[in-house]
Amino acid sequence: VTTAFALRPASAEGGHLVALAEAHAADFATRAACHDRENSFPFENWEAMRGSGLLGGCVAGRFGGLGVTSVHDLVVAISRLAAGDAATAIAVNMHLAAFWHLSRLERRAEAAGDALAAGQLRRLLRLAGSGRAVACVAMSEAGTSLGWPATTATAVGDGYRIAGRKVFCTGSPVATLFLSSVRVVGDGDDRLGFALVPRETGGLRVTESWDALGMRASGSHDVVYQDCLLPRRLVMLAGSLGAIAPEVMPVVTVGALGLAGVALGIAERAQELIVAAVTTRRRGPGGRLQAERRAVQTLIAESEIDLGAGRAVLARAAAGLDDRLAAGTAEPAWDALMKEVQCAGMTAKRGALAVVDRALTATGGAGYLTANPLSRLYRDVRAGPFMQPFSPLEAFEYIGKVTLGLDPELDV
Amino acid sequence: VTTAFALRPASAEGGHLVALAEAHAADFATRAACHDRENSFPFENWEAMRGSGLLGGCVAGRFGGLGVTSVHDLVVAISRLAAGDAATAIAVNMHLAAFWHLSRLERRAEAAGDALAAGQLRRLLRLAGSGRAVACVAMSEAGTSLGWPATTATAVGDGYRIAGRKVFCTGSPVATLFLSSVRVVGDGDDRLGFALVPRETGGLRVTESWDALGMRASGSHDVVYQDCLLPRRLVMLAGSLGAIAPEVMPVVTVGALGLAGVALGIAERAQELIVAAVTTRRRGPGGRLQAERRAVQTLIAESEIDLGAGRAVLARAAAGLDDRLAAGTAEPAWDALMKEVQCAGMTAKRGALAVVDRALTATGGAGYLTANPLSRLYRDVRAGPFMQPFSPLEAFEYIGKVTLGLDPELDV
Amino acid sequence: VTTAFALRPASAEGGHLVALAEAHAADFATRAACHDRENSFPFENWEAMRGSGLLGGCVAGRFGGLGVTSVHDLVVAISRLAAGDAATAIAVNMHLAAFWHLSRLERRAEAAGDALAAGQLRRLLRLAGSGRAVACVAMSEAGTSLGWPATTATAVGDGYRIAGRKVFCTGSPVATLFLSSVRVVGDGDDRLGFALVPRETGGLRVTESWDALGMRASGSHDVVYQDCLLPRRLVMLAGSLGAIAPEVMPVVTVGALGLAGVALGIAERAQELIVAAVTTRRRGPGGRLQAERRAVQTLIAESEIDLGAGRAVLARAAAGLDDRLAAGTAEPAWDALMKEVQCAGMTAKRGALAVVDRALTATGGAGYLTANPLSRLYRDVRAGPFMQPFSPLEAFEYIGKVTLGLDPELDV
Amino acid sequence: VTTAFALRPASAEGGHLVALAEAHAADFATRAACHDRENSFPFENWEAMRGSGLLGGCVAGRFGGLGVTSVHDLVVAISRLAAGDAATAIAVNMHLAAFWHLSRLERRAEAAGDALAAGQLRRLLRLAGSGRAVACVAMSEAGTSLGWPATTATAVGDGYRIAGRKVFCTGSPVATLFLSSVRVVGDGDDRLGFALVPRETGGLRVTESWDALGMRASGSHDVVYQDCLLPRRLVMLAGSLGAIAPEVMPVVTVGALGLAGVALGIAERAQELIVAAVTTRRRGPGGRLQAERRAVQTLIAESEIDLGAGRAVLARAAAGLDDRLAAGTAEPAWDALMKEVQCAGMTAKRGALAVVDRALTATGGAGYLTANPLSRLYRDVRAGPFMQPFSPLEAFEYIGKVTLGLDPELDV
Repeated sequence: VTTAFALRPASAEGGHLVALAEAHAADFATRAACHDRENSFPFENWEAMRGSGLLGGCVAGRFGGLGVTSVHDLVVAISRLAAGDAATAIAVNMHLAAFWHLSRLERRAEAAGDALAAGQLRRLLRLAGSGRAVACVAMSEAGTSLGWPATTATAVGDGYRIAGRKVFCTGSPVATLFLSSVRVVGDGDDRLGFALVPRETGGLRVTESWDALGMRASGSHDVVYQDCLLPRRLVMLAGSLGAIAPEVMPVVTVGALGLAGVALGIAERAQELIVAAVTTRRRGPGGRLQAERRAVQTLIAESEIDLGAGRAVLARAAAGLDDRLAAGTAEPAWDALMKEVQCAGMTAKRGALAVVDRALTATGGAGYLTANPLSRLYRDVRAGPFMQPFSPLEAFEYIGKVTLGLDPELDV
Repeated sequence: VTTAFALRPASAEGGHLVALAEAHAADFATRAACHDRENSFPFENWEAMRGSGLLGGCVAGRFGGLGVTSVHDLVVAISRLAAGDAATAIAVNMHLAAFWHLSRLERRAEAAGDALAAGQLRRLLRLAGSGRAVACVAMSEAGTSLGWPATTATAVGDGYRIAGRKVFCTGSPVATLFLSSVRVVGDGDDRLGFALVPRETGGLRVTESWDALGMRASGSHDVVYQDCLLPRRLVMLAGSLGAIAPEVMPVVTVGALGLAGVALGIAERAQELIVAAVTTRRRGPGGRLQAERRAVQTLIAESEIDLGAGRAVLARAAAGLDDRLAAGTAEPAWDALMKEVQCAGMTAKRGALAVVDRALTATGGAGYLTANPLSRLYRDVRAGPFMQPFSPLEAFEYIGKVTLGLDPELDV
Repeated sequence: VTTAFALRPASAEGGHLVALAEAHAADFATRAACHDRENSFPFENWEAMRGSGLLGGCVAGRFGGLGVTSVHDLVVAISRLAAGDAATAIAVNMHLAAFWHLSRLERRAEAAGDALAAGQLRRLLRLAGSGRAVACVAMSEAGTSLGWPATTATAVGDGYRIAGRKVFCTGSPVATLFLSSVRVVGDGDDRLGFALVPRETGGLRVTESWDALGMRASGSHDVVYQDCLLPRRLVMLAGSLGAIAPEVMPVVTVGALGLAGVALGIAERAQELIVAAVTTRRRGPGGRLQAERRAVQTLIAESEIDLGAGRAVLARAAAGLDDRLAAGTAEPAWDALMKEVQCAGMTAKRGALAVVDRALTATGGAGYLTANPLSRLYRDVRAGPFMQPFSPLEAFEYIGKVTLGLDPELDV
Repeated sequence: VTTAFALRPASAEGGHLVALAEAHAADFATRAACHDRENSFPFENWEAMRGSGLLGGCVAGRFGGLGVTSVHDLVVAISRLAAGDAATAIAVNMHLAAFWHLSRLERRAEAAGDALAAGQLRRLLRLAGSGRAVACVAMSEAGTSLGWPATTATAVGDGYRIAGRKVFCTGSPVATLFLSSVRVVGDGDDRLGFALVPRETGGLRVTESWDALGMRASGSHDVVYQDCLLPRRLVMLAGSLGAIAPEVMPVVTVGALGLAGVALGIAERAQELIVAAVTTRRRGPGGRLQAERRAVQTLIAESEIDLGAGRAVLARAAAGLDDRLAAGTAEPAWDALMKEVQCAGMTAKRGALAVVDRALTATGGAGYLTANPLSRLYRDVRAGPFMQPFSPLEAFEYIGKVTLGLDPELDV
């Protein structure tokens, strides 16, 4: 992305992460079409990111990571990665958001003097710092919403038995740890909970079933928990069913912003490709550049407007998040922040869909061919509106209720 | 399409054609996903349509055809076919539009007492009446516009030598006859011309190269003319370069309307699928139907609005065309009719894109999976705006100029 | 409206009505700006329409009217009137829709052998046939929806006492008869009812309070019923509260279609004005016509597309209504028809708003001045989405529920 | 604007200006409806702003002003003023933008050692610092574009004779100085120039003719120059005709951003009004809050998304402008900056139009009444897309060309 108005990292650590992301993107782009066609998982991309240190991006330097704490810079890095391979970027995003969250929990545990929790987290962060731990956020289920998981965690002896099926588990082929929402059943009312399920847990199965319109290299398989036994410390109890628990709001909010960054990265790539095409391709007997056609200029202009809006909303929402998190030790009003993130995400994703669509139109037909990378971007970018929380089926209700001061609890 | 407000054929012949289209659609739908996945051409579909008589739809009964002359009914039939397999429908559409045109030419030649022309056309119509002649409209070329073909027809001896390459030649695997725009070169200024190139002509090659985002079973390969020699009677001279020649306006106009019918058919199928899904799938602990969610109702409503508009504009434009063609022996003002068709097509295609997109959204994620037919419809329907004449790169200029009384000649 | 693709009346009676509407429109247009500025009611327009016979448009010839029964032709006529003065047109529309309905009731009463009802209706139709009866549909109330009127009809002695306040009573300055929904209270549950309140009824007051963004000459005052006593025969009992009663569905459906026709008429006028402006105004040193600018052509083209869609959906919905009403003696499925009308209305109104907006844009600034009629059209056309039933706050739910086979009863 | 995500000034001086703007807005809002109705100019507003010091906002403290140099903070202040009275805000914006520019010119003249120019500017800035100088940017003319003024400056003796007519001269009733583009005629080719015309110049006439759809209190009269004689130093020679001269790009760019800020301010006010309305008004027999309706929540949510985008694009474009201006002594690439500003303005203005429109919709009808302030906001916000440079007739071409690396010179 060479434009003078591209997003820029705000911190030195972020600058490092963004530079790595750009370098990886250039490499991944060379294989993206192949993995898309073969519906294969790019294990070599993950090996490369382990080697470069990118996978430890949000882990502190003392644990071997790059030490990025700025959400803004995380989003910028993800957008750059997505310009090369969006499928890889969505999986990396959830991994980095998870460890951004766990890093923050560790700092908070330490500050609160909770040595036990801090110690457990540190062990995990050391693994992640060197890229040996990879997180997969396995929240979604078929036929229900985020606040009402059907996957159960039943208290048994010293721990829990987990049973259920998660879908859209992006990055599952390389994940070592699955973060899953569960319905804690037992005495009394069911409650919400969160389980950290290590990959080696008996009964855990990744189905290798992912086959979709786009984001084909993301490995978003189903994960089945068939009576997985977990020690008690790997299951956190949260609030009542029906809402997003405060305990996971940070990771969900940051993850959502990163996914919007993926959409922006795809759109920036599409615009780059079409600008290059119309400023080099000549047409007809007069040999006029495509770029000289007024209809092409108008498409390019509309996309610049969308890209400018996408960059601005992501930068402002992310910087706002960083400011509020830096401001104090108390948790911020997460619903208000999530609302801002959802608004920003809606603008960025809608804009990205429109930008890629216009790029296709501006090709005059060539973009419809499989050989043209725009046809892949068109399929990849459509994933954006499905992403949790909140898809368009829930987002307007959520944003509206928070704005109007109503309880944002959602229907099933 | 069971809705009470679906389009209905206006003539008895049209009713027959529509009934055949519906029956074929039900059959083709069973194989559409397979041909899409394998990027293969559905030869068996064409065999079936030859057998049923559908391929002779626009040929008079005295030549063995079904005798449909109503453009309205042709469009309705194409929309029904598209609901089963859109890729097949776009190829059938161009074939039927071509023979609708040739049938009209034969009637006009006869009325004008031009026995020679009428006789030649009759031979062709008899072949088409029994499904042995299949037409492919091979107009598009890379890097130029409709009015400025680079494919040349050079006068040699008693005929012409054709050289050039056509792209997006829908239906080419089964076509017996290729209708191609050419640049007639020789003495004086280059002129526009049209060539009817029989498949068996030496030097003609179908490249088998079609591999696209959607419409994968349409066989829209490139066709290469490497010094094809044609007798003089198979090349028609038309006007000067730069505009669509009046000689092909009827076929291009009717073809364009049929392609908009394809978009409508895809959209009707998508709405049918999503209504069925949300009225049967239950969700969450309460087991509420998806259809009871206000967000889903709103998506369905917006799509009903778009479908209603798509049906209405196609019906009105097609019936208007039929009325004007029935009104007299003189050619109607084709630019005004084409403008109406372009307006109708824009409404129908935009609406169809939005309907399929909303259906995807309403699935909440399932529609993004390859196994869900909506993911194919999403790719197929995107072909609409690329289709000639006119893509969005030219359509607004054309419609605007005709409305404003300016010469609609287009830039390259 | 000189375009070759304008809507055309289908019946001879309709042709007469449309011709009258066009003549009145040309006259009313000369005073529309003045009434708009002074917020005055155009009594002289109504006098002229009484004189020409237009006010008796939907009353049978044997009662002195023009005998139009075609909803299609009624909508065409209203659209033509609106091109001259939209404020007058919305009031005329509700009056004509009311008498279209009462005429139909009379025919049905006669066919059913209900001489008493037929006789009462005939007296009213004779008055309307000569323009001495003018109906005002006074349904809306502040703070509630159509199905839940707060205006009460309390049984007293031989009749009812009506009390309440209606808003947006278009045409109230000249109305002789107010059709109002009421809540019939008394023994048992409240029920829905409809009252025909003659203007001379004691306690009825028209407030002369109308002062709005647009449609300023429509006289849409509040009407207050302060203990109006009505004989029993002027109050019809309908179903339970919460839905639109079947008894008024015909008038409400036809009225809604006419209001969409008003939007179309405004838009057609706006397009006519801007096409005239850009094809005559020259600009800058080169003296190029505005029409030659590509940006202007694109605006004009987008509006042609919207106008084409508006015409097509109204024509198809109205003709569909005519066909179904002609088909038999049983009442058609009004919810399905109303859904189609709502879909058509949404397309026509949205399109009209966009067309007027683009016309403003294409003026480059002149259209923002009060002296330019487009600035009035911009205000008038905004009334469309507020019109009952259903505004955008209810329409999507209604359309969605009907499509999905759910009970379309609406929330308050 | 009480939202936690509102724009915030970045500098202390900006904080002062914003606080003044908010206080004035609360006051002006009490009279806005009255001036709108009576089409009168709010002289008392200007007196108040002179008294508070706001009119000297962009003049350095040493000249008696508030010393705001941040474009970002200027835009924030203008948006707050617009929430109270948009018509006043657009006039204040052009005045402040002009003196922001003249202040910058003075600093640059001083830095460059140009004592003469610096001295002349200082005299002007001292007047402006105390609010005695008010600038009006009088650029627009009927029938031509910004780059091709028809107003002439003819060299005569020691100065120039100015002749022509400017339109949309916002703030003209109180302006003491008119900044006008002119066509400098004389020997050789006509050139572009800029004249600073003092109000007291003989032959200058303000027509008092402004009467428009909205922004009625802005005093945007025509200004007629009938052979006004100006000394040579008040006319700057600029480049060739056809483009925006680099000499005025700063004032035009900053002015354009401020006008987008006006749109945002109107939209924020509309959202505030509708949120207040729907969270207090109850409806129907159940007395449910309007805010509880899903359709209302969706409208509010869509508007939050638009407001978030509007804030973000303005903040980012303005801060980017501030950064680049602070970065060095050389002039930045103004076309690139103007492109960003145009993109941001397009997002902010489109969003604002949609927000006000949705607010109207959410009232269910009340917003259409003149008594409801939303009906004024609806008219005021429509001015946005007309504002120079560039209206939608030119903006897409300009943005497209700059993005594509083509010469952004515009057609007439």
